Amino acid sequence: MTVMDKIYLAGPDVFLPDAIAIGRRKKELCAAYGFEGLFPFDNEIDPKASAEPADRLIFRANESMIRSADIGIFNLTPFRGPSADAGTVFELGMMVGLGKRVFGYSNVAEDFLERSKQSVGVSFDAATNSWRDANRMAIENFGNADNLMIDNALFDHGGHAMVRHAATPQNRFSDLTGFEMCLRLAAAAVSKSA
Amino acid sequence: MTVMDKIYLAGPDVFLPDAIAIGRRKKELCAAYGFEGLFPFDNEIDPKASAEPADRLIFRANESMIRSADIGIFNLTPFRGPSADAGTVFELGMMVGLGKRVFGYSNVAEDFLERSKQSVGVSFDAATNSWRDANRMAIENFGNADNLMIDNALFDHGGHAMVRHAATPQNRFSDLTGFEMCLRLAAAAVSKSA
Repeated sequence: MTVMDKIYLAGPDVFLPDAIAIGRRKKELCAAYGFEGLFPFDNEIDPKASAEPADRLIFRANESMIRSADIGIFNLTPFRGPSADAGTVFELGMMVGLGKRVFGYSNVAEDFLERSKQSVGVSFDAATNSWRDANRMAIENFGNADNLMIDNALFDHGGHAMVRHAATPQNRFSDLTGFEMCLRLAAAAVSKSA
Repeated sequence: MTVMDKIYLAGPDVFLPDAIAIGRRKKELCAAYGFEGLFPFDNEIDPKASAEPADRLIFRANESMIRSADIGIFNLTPFRGPSADAGTVFELGMMVGLGKRVFGYSNVAEDFLERSKQSVGVSFDAATNSWRDANRMAIENFGNADNLMIDNALFDHGGHAMVRHAATPQNRFSDLTGFEMCLRLAAAAVSKSA
């Protein structure tokens, strides 16, 4: 009997109206590539069974699931601004700190600077030779998909750049093309190290 | 001779035009509370000395600094949207994964839901009994300052809720009131465990 590697399925997918269905689909895809998928909604939370607030119970269940996983695949599609969902980014950092292998995808293909130009007021500041927002805060211009900590974490702790796939706007958070590409990268990495 | 605990100073402060000055001020405050402050700009990066891209060198220098720190203090002020800066949130996750003590502050006092109402289109969805954005994605309503992973990470891995201080808009990213409150919490935590 082979023990399957467990993949934590991180992303703002949990906020979708059909979160349970998309979690199920991601887990089916994991199984097709020889992995066990762990989706946050699999955690059973019973707020009535504890004096702790519900959000703390959800946090602890997610943390425990992350610790039990071998690999993480992160949906880093820009979320309510030029960067990825904050909860997902926190979990990416946590898995890197725990020394796990991480892969990520975005369903928007443009660079961070291009997307910042579209979503926040941006101007070029000749004095500092940099792009800055309305608060005069610098905007990174390294050709990355997001903040340099995110893109380089994927490269150094998973071996690959962020997978970028231009999904249609209506499928921005549900398109699984980039997710499946990450699964292929994960399968190749695991077979290489076996 | 006492060895001082090292505090990693995380935040979008690095994007300010006067980033070096604010880093210096934060390090002075650390020293006043008996800590050594580590600011990302202290890392000397020489892109000419390496074939690697500059952003990767910055990532690795920050990662190494984070690993060498005992404690993290995070500026989690909302940044270009309803959530904190993505790089800062990544680093918070990393320090939690590494088992370090974390404290955080925001220079905006309102709850996450209130701020989301101000910055993204939000409406109440009776069918799911939840607030949702224009993409029909749910907005957390737990009374937190940000995504539940962030607020609860601070509580479980530092012992305190996020420090919230209503700074004036022009001092949103430079006000250090909340930062100094975090320093006091860190000093109390260290003296308690000594």
